[in-house]
Amino acid sequence: MANKMWGGRFETKPAEIMEEINASISFDQRFYAEDIRASQAHATMLGACGIVTPEEADAIVAGLDTVREEIEGGRFEFRREYEDIHMAVEARLKDLIGPVAGKLHTGRSRNDQVATDFRLYIRGAIDHLDEQIATLQLALATKANFHAATIMPGFTHMQVAQPVTFGHHCLAYVEMLDRDRGRFADARARVNESPLGAAALAGTSFPIDRHMTASALGFARPLANSLDAVSSRDFALETLAAAAICATHLSRLSEEIVVWFSAGFRFITLSDRFTTGSSIMPQKRNPDAAELVRAKVGRVAGAFVSLLTVMKGLPLAYSKDMQEDKEAVFLAIDALSLGLAAMTGMIEDMEPVPERMRDAAGQGFSTATDLADWLVLHAQLPFREAHHVTGRIVKHAENLGVDLHEVPLKDMQAVEPRITERIFDVLNVDKSVESRRSFGGTAPQNVKAAAEIWLKKLEAAGTSR
Amino acid sequence: MANKMWGGRFETKPAEIMEEINASISFDQRFYAEDIRASQAHATMLGACGIVTPEEADAIVAGLDTVREEIEGGRFEFRREYEDIHMAVEARLKDLIGPVAGKLHTGRSRNDQVATDFRLYIRGAIDHLDEQIATLQLALATKANFHAATIMPGFTHMQVAQPVTFGHHCLAYVEMLDRDRGRFADARARVNESPLGAAALAGTSFPIDRHMTASALGFARPLANSLDAVSSRDFALETLAAAAICATHLSRLSEEIVVWFSAGFRFITLSDRFTTGSSIMPQKRNPDAAELVRAKVGRVAGAFVSLLTVMKGLPLAYSKDMQEDKEAVFLAIDALSLGLAAMTGMIEDMEPVPERMRDAAGQGFSTATDLADWLVLHAQLPFREAHHVTGRIVKHAENLGVDLHEVPLKDMQAVEPRITERIFDVLNVDKSVESRRSFGGTAPQNVKAAAEIWLKKLEAAGTSR
Amino acid sequence: MANKMWGGRFETKPAEIMEEINASISFDQRFYAEDIRASQAHATMLGACGIVTPEEADAIVAGLDTVREEIEGGRFEFRREYEDIHMAVEARLKDLIGPVAGKLHTGRSRNDQVATDFRLYIRGAIDHLDEQIATLQLALATKANFHAATIMPGFTHMQVAQPVTFGHHCLAYVEMLDRDRGRFADARARVNESPLGAAALAGTSFPIDRHMTASALGFARPLANSLDAVSSRDFALETLAAAAICATHLSRLSEEIVVWFSAGFRFITLSDRFTTGSSIMPQKRNPDAAELVRAKVGRVAGAFVSLLTVMKGLPLAYSKDMQEDKEAVFLAIDALSLGLAAMTGMIEDMEPVPERMRDAAGQGFSTATDLADWLVLHAQLPFREAHHVTGRIVKHAENLGVDLHEVPLKDMQAVEPRITERIFDVLNVDKSVESRRSFGGTAPQNVKAAAEIWLKKLEAAGTSR
Amino acid sequence: MANKMWGGRFETKPAEIMEEINASISFDQRFYAEDIRASQAHATMLGACGIVTPEEADAIVAGLDTVREEIEGGRFEFRREYEDIHMAVEARLKDLIGPVAGKLHTGRSRNDQVATDFRLYIRGAIDHLDEQIATLQLALATKANFHAATIMPGFTHMQVAQPVTFGHHCLAYVEMLDRDRGRFADARARVNESPLGAAALAGTSFPIDRHMTASALGFARPLANSLDAVSSRDFALETLAAAAICATHLSRLSEEIVVWFSAGFRFITLSDRFTTGSSIMPQKRNPDAAELVRAKVGRVAGAFVSLLTVMKGLPLAYSKDMQEDKEAVFLAIDALSLGLAAMTGMIEDMEPVPERMRDAAGQGFSTATDLADWLVLHAQLPFREAHHVTGRIVKHAENLGVDLHEVPLKDMQAVEPRITERIFDVLNVDKSVESRRSFGGTAPQNVKAAAEIWLKKLEAAGTSR
Repeated sequence: MANKMWGGRFETKPAEIMEEINASISFDQRFYAEDIRASQAHATMLGACGIVTPEEADAIVAGLDTVREEIEGGRFEFRREYEDIHMAVEARLKDLIGPVAGKLHTGRSRNDQVATDFRLYIRGAIDHLDEQIATLQLALATKANFHAATIMPGFTHMQVAQPVTFGHHCLAYVEMLDRDRGRFADARARVNESPLGAAALAGTSFPIDRHMTASALGFARPLANSLDAVSSRDFALETLAAAAICATHLSRLSEEIVVWFSAGFRFITLSDRFTTGSSIMPQKRNPDAAELVRAKVGRVAGAFVSLLTVMKGLPLAYSKDMQEDKEAVFLAIDALSLGLAAMTGMIEDMEPVPERMRDAAGQGFSTATDLADWLVLHAQLPFREAHHVTGRIVKHAENLGVDLHEVPLKDMQAVEPRITERIFDVLNVDKSVESRRSFGGTAPQNVKAAAEIWLKKLEAAGTSR
Repeated sequence: MANKMWGGRFETKPAEIMEEINASISFDQRFYAEDIRASQAHATMLGACGIVTPEEADAIVAGLDTVREEIEGGRFEFRREYEDIHMAVEARLKDLIGPVAGKLHTGRSRNDQVATDFRLYIRGAIDHLDEQIATLQLALATKANFHAATIMPGFTHMQVAQPVTFGHHCLAYVEMLDRDRGRFADARARVNESPLGAAALAGTSFPIDRHMTASALGFARPLANSLDAVSSRDFALETLAAAAICATHLSRLSEEIVVWFSAGFRFITLSDRFTTGSSIMPQKRNPDAAELVRAKVGRVAGAFVSLLTVMKGLPLAYSKDMQEDKEAVFLAIDALSLGLAAMTGMIEDMEPVPERMRDAAGQGFSTATDLADWLVLHAQLPFREAHHVTGRIVKHAENLGVDLHEVPLKDMQAVEPRITERIFDVLNVDKSVESRRSFGGTAPQNVKAAAEIWLKKLEAAGTSR
Repeated sequence: MANKMWGGRFETKPAEIMEEINASISFDQRFYAEDIRASQAHATMLGACGIVTPEEADAIVAGLDTVREEIEGGRFEFRREYEDIHMAVEARLKDLIGPVAGKLHTGRSRNDQVATDFRLYIRGAIDHLDEQIATLQLALATKANFHAATIMPGFTHMQVAQPVTFGHHCLAYVEMLDRDRGRFADARARVNESPLGAAALAGTSFPIDRHMTASALGFARPLANSLDAVSSRDFALETLAAAAICATHLSRLSEEIVVWFSAGFRFITLSDRFTTGSSIMPQKRNPDAAELVRAKVGRVAGAFVSLLTVMKGLPLAYSKDMQEDKEAVFLAIDALSLGLAAMTGMIEDMEPVPERMRDAAGQGFSTATDLADWLVLHAQLPFREAHHVTGRIVKHAENLGVDLHEVPLKDMQAVEPRITERIFDVLNVDKSVESRRSFGGTAPQNVKAAAEIWLKKLEAAGTSR
Repeated sequence: MANKMWGGRFETKPAEIMEEINASISFDQRFYAEDIRASQAHATMLGACGIVTPEEADAIVAGLDTVREEIEGGRFEFRREYEDIHMAVEARLKDLIGPVAGKLHTGRSRNDQVATDFRLYIRGAIDHLDEQIATLQLALATKANFHAATIMPGFTHMQVAQPVTFGHHCLAYVEMLDRDRGRFADARARVNESPLGAAALAGTSFPIDRHMTASALGFARPLANSLDAVSSRDFALETLAAAAICATHLSRLSEEIVVWFSAGFRFITLSDRFTTGSSIMPQKRNPDAAELVRAKVGRVAGAFVSLLTVMKGLPLAYSKDMQEDKEAVFLAIDALSLGLAAMTGMIEDMEPVPERMRDAAGQGFSTATDLADWLVLHAQLPFREAHHVTGRIVKHAENLGVDLHEVPLKDMQAVEPRITERIFDVLNVDKSVESRRSFGGTAPQNVKAAAEIWLKKLEAAGTSR
């Protein structure tokens, strides 16, 4: 089969291959806003330090404003001959303001420029992801608040273990996501240092003021070592790791949605907005969005592996290998961002089916632990002995074909005479969850209180849907 | 900073998020040729088996020809509302030939269709990669043939160990690349089975002939189990693994090019075609292409991790997670293909600097092993004792500040009386490499013979530049 | 907290750190049998080629036999001062047979020796894994043969899609595992080449016969390039990739076992042998073995990433980095081997609960496709129109609260008059699976035939339990 | 070949396989100290809350002290029948103090217990790694202080770009390592929350005080959601990510050591303590330690991938898959710890060869940038024009076969008349580095000051060798 895609590609000219492998403008044009902003800060500083005249600085800043407007207005052609976004912007600037454009590059180089742009970009991406995660937290906390007392089975090994509440389950993810936000915030702090003015690798002899540009760009400080400033990509790796961990959390919640929505469980409903159907089986709904979110972690984890492999064993200062850093980050951020948006939509959309959940929660003698705990608390049996007694009563219930709260008192007393009728206070699922009032436990009053704290916190921070 | 990229994205409508996460047409349009070809084979079979009339089959085949022409002529709009390439083609077919288009989907489903397209695509990609690897082998074998006797240092731990020839070094990569081709060929054999007709997952009640479509599409056979046919992606994982291993080989050769080209070695020259410079240091050449090829392994390995993560723990038969399979494969194949093209160009372009290599090969008493071997062969010392004697002579040479072949005979005899003047036959680098005539050894006559075998083999297979 | 584990470790002496990081004997002692066998082949060849005397060769071979016996008898101490298994064996040999032991190392070096041992080891491991996979295939095919007609739901997106048979499902894994065996067999062919005699990197001047040692060790041939022979680890990477893909298949089957065994499905039972319980809930069984097998893919995939990261950008010929190759392979092989053994046990142990499976298979209007196919086959509706009609009938059934085969004929005819009472031939799950007789389809007769072919093939190959 | 390793393994009994796959005591015995400490805190709290009597609490605490002493005294047998460290300790406690031991498990379960132990262990490991990194920083800063003015070439693309100082290069790694410490510190804060008392998943009805146990164990707080407390492993993933990034930094420095030590560069010497030799080439030193450290990143990155693969798509609360978390973490921590120790040793051991570095720094017209900067600063040329003029002068120097500072003044003036003899102030490497006084630049005075700040900071923190 002759496949047009492959036919003749790179077959002929080295020049074409080199251009293809070397050019980054197809993807680094994403940086245009960051590149222009950083150049403006640099030009302003050059003016303030007397390295260029105030008029020159103004001309450069104004010219760059025009370039930005052209790009945002769709009137800018990203030609591959310019190789990267930095050259493309500078070339256009020269068209617009003439030779003075050449002064912009005083006291900096491509190496610190690209590191600066990349950091600004990642910082912006982190800020956006933080908002998205907060929005997902809000959706979960809202659900938790509403369903603080909705009983569902708590699973271990996908077997019913103990009853919990649906709100409690939702809040578990709010906690995980909060640590994700913490990781992103910590990564942001390390991203947020300025390489600008490190020049090629050694610093510069021009009397530049790196603190001034750092401050103008919102960086906490300039990076303290020029070699480190242009050579390091740990800030990108750390961001990818935080994204991979967050995506893992989304994959776990997605798996649960798929399982809850499955034929065997039917714990939740999802509307048409996040499921797809087929013309032939109109009643069949497939949780496609959940499955796609579950899968996204692959892409994000792959991006981390990609960049780490690139950076492994790379000597200082700059090697062209590092050009591979950007696409890995773009892929991962886009995948996570889309996953967060889809998950938020699904959580808002999803409705539990309380009766299905409650039925399931009552199966499998899920209150056996409560029985054992009662024996310890009220009949003073040691823990391990209480377990043994409980096991015998469960077995008896199984033989009778009834649930635990249906076993006659005298049958229980035959196993352990210290049991009284107060035992029934703990044997149904409502009593069970109510009793779990230890800090962090699933008792509805705990869940309600925790949900309210989260809602207040998120709303105070201005998170909205 | 307000970043337009992020602003408002997915902020509003679930529909938009779902469309964004669900649609694959932005990337699976690569499959158009495979999709049309597979549909034509299916339609022809439906006609032959009497499931549609011959006229209907002909109309479908002809209509699909038209769709292909429209796409290749740039007259086809890939609208996202069609979600994927399969829907886009079928919708257009219906426009062109009316309701009979609806019969095309008889006895198949999207699940087997997408698996068929993907296998055809990967098969084509493997064939193209195989040609590219063969072309790189040819470039290396040509270099090896020319430089069968060009002395260079053989390194261990980046220290000079023993002299070898540049041709021998080139042929080491020809061998590695041949195993890469073997891996791709083996992967191809497992890719080359037909899922078509497995339908959604269970097979079909239509009297289709899966052997006929398999044969028409060049597949070795239809897959024997319909569930397996739609659920498996091991063929893609295996292709990614073969690509990752091949990319690892390229990364090793790239590293060597960077080192050989470095300030410390200067073993090779590379022209402007595969290096870049700067306006300020016109003599400085950076081996950008080699660095970029070295980095590509990151992307390919990342793709393997991505897809494996997606497939981990996925129940049969089809889940939407599997839509993530395609982009991983595209990314990896494109990266490897570009890396192979760039490497081939560099190998053709690269010229060794024989005197620099030879000088380096003679340093560090690199013929010490030859001395020891001579002692065993001609003076009957046991191997370990010969090593000991050699060590003492090397130390003496070091003290004298001379190379091994410059140590006076009587000084050597003072260490070991059985040494005769025949020892000088093996102490220079030419004699050393000449003596390594064991099978696979670096003796120029071995290298020449091996290079000629490779050239004949590659040329017989029609590999050309 | 003062943690004894960490206290004082490496705090003092460089010598200790160097020994710790450098020594491999703690893990490469696994190679003792391969190392001794390769040394014996080498010594025999040295004798045959007249490089040592026949008596010397005999003494070495006999001495090595003694070392092996000492090791296997537990009378050998692997002291870390010997650094690696090769030194340990050689040192002991010297104790046993005196200075002639020193002749063993003639015409080889540690570099080709370790590569030879590693290839022999992996070859043996692949052979063992192949047997284990075949045994798992046998268990699955046996199950498939017994349950060729046991109805279960075929899922897509964990939603009931169409009925299939449990045997059909089992055979899907037999197919996947067969490709895994193919991958291992192909890897084995590339593993099975001999590096022995490549010496340090350049070959040797001794008139050795590498074909003789290759043949004695069961290798297909000696590797043709001495640099390649000592530098390459693609054979290990390929083995790890095959293992990772096989482990992915096990993870998918494990996930299904966990789901089938879950509270929501109860499709299978597993005995105490592969589940664990708790004293308190004696009826609760957790599918621990399945979960652990599901997890093992992490370790195997991690091992692939580990070794690939190590090899990335490594120049020829030997660098000490490559010492990291062995533990990755050991970890992966052990994990996969254990996973296969546990999975085989579970498959043999597992019993389907046919009535639960059958009930589930009948839900969700799973024969809707059959209805549509009938309309095409017997009422000549175009496929897409048949889908539309089916959708309407399904909706009607949903409204009535009945299953498809319970919809009155006249109600169906109201939607589509061409429907006759023959329609009921395809609307229940038995009829549905029976009709799927296309090649690879789920019809019990297909499944039975396929299972028998597999059983015959596996038994002919001597696979047994 | 019959390989004893494989022979008969798992061939027979399911029980054996299950025990093998299920038991974790072979590796989780590392936790003994953490397990005992957590149990003592729990028992003390049970006593304080009146859930057990003071005497019972005392008996448990004392009994656990005895168990710890037995373990640390080597008098404890870790039998596999106990399955894990928790059971082993509890069983021994029962032997020692009788049935009251059974009360220890009141209000907790294995799920929160193992999470608590694991967090305590990782916290201790992070603290140890932090000390190790600080010690490496100290070694680097000490070197930097001593060599603040030692000139070496700054490379880009392994080509000489601009002169820098060796001290500046060392400090670049001090900065990277400081961010590594920051990442570990941030991870530690998220590790340092207590799951104890979350019980199986739902909390407990016993009136326990989770704040009390958290505080006793040095945790910042109890985790706020019981499901999250037992289900989450993001703390382990984050620690692995931080370790992988740190190991990447070590791999970069290792690569530089290998290159600097190579035949082509000879920038540094390393003593016998961190290199190995061969009996035959006594002068040849191989940087084995550096190569092994370079390779360790493979293992650490592999561990991250392993655990992330395990956690992908895992539903709440506890699944046995999570037992795979520990070995990944142990492998990674051990590899990084060993790598840090070896690197610290090498840095202390390594001596630069100033004359080789200085010679290399002067090659390749490495002060061309200085010339261009002078033209801008003192002759008011725009930056891009200055580059152009510089390029012409470099080309002229190349033609003359001299270095930049050897080009006659009149030749330079012929290219650009505004050049004066003051130009020679910047053309040699000393002047070049001296001029780079911008913040973070390589000027010796900058480097000296930065090194002193680091030394003071590290010594104030008590870091010592």
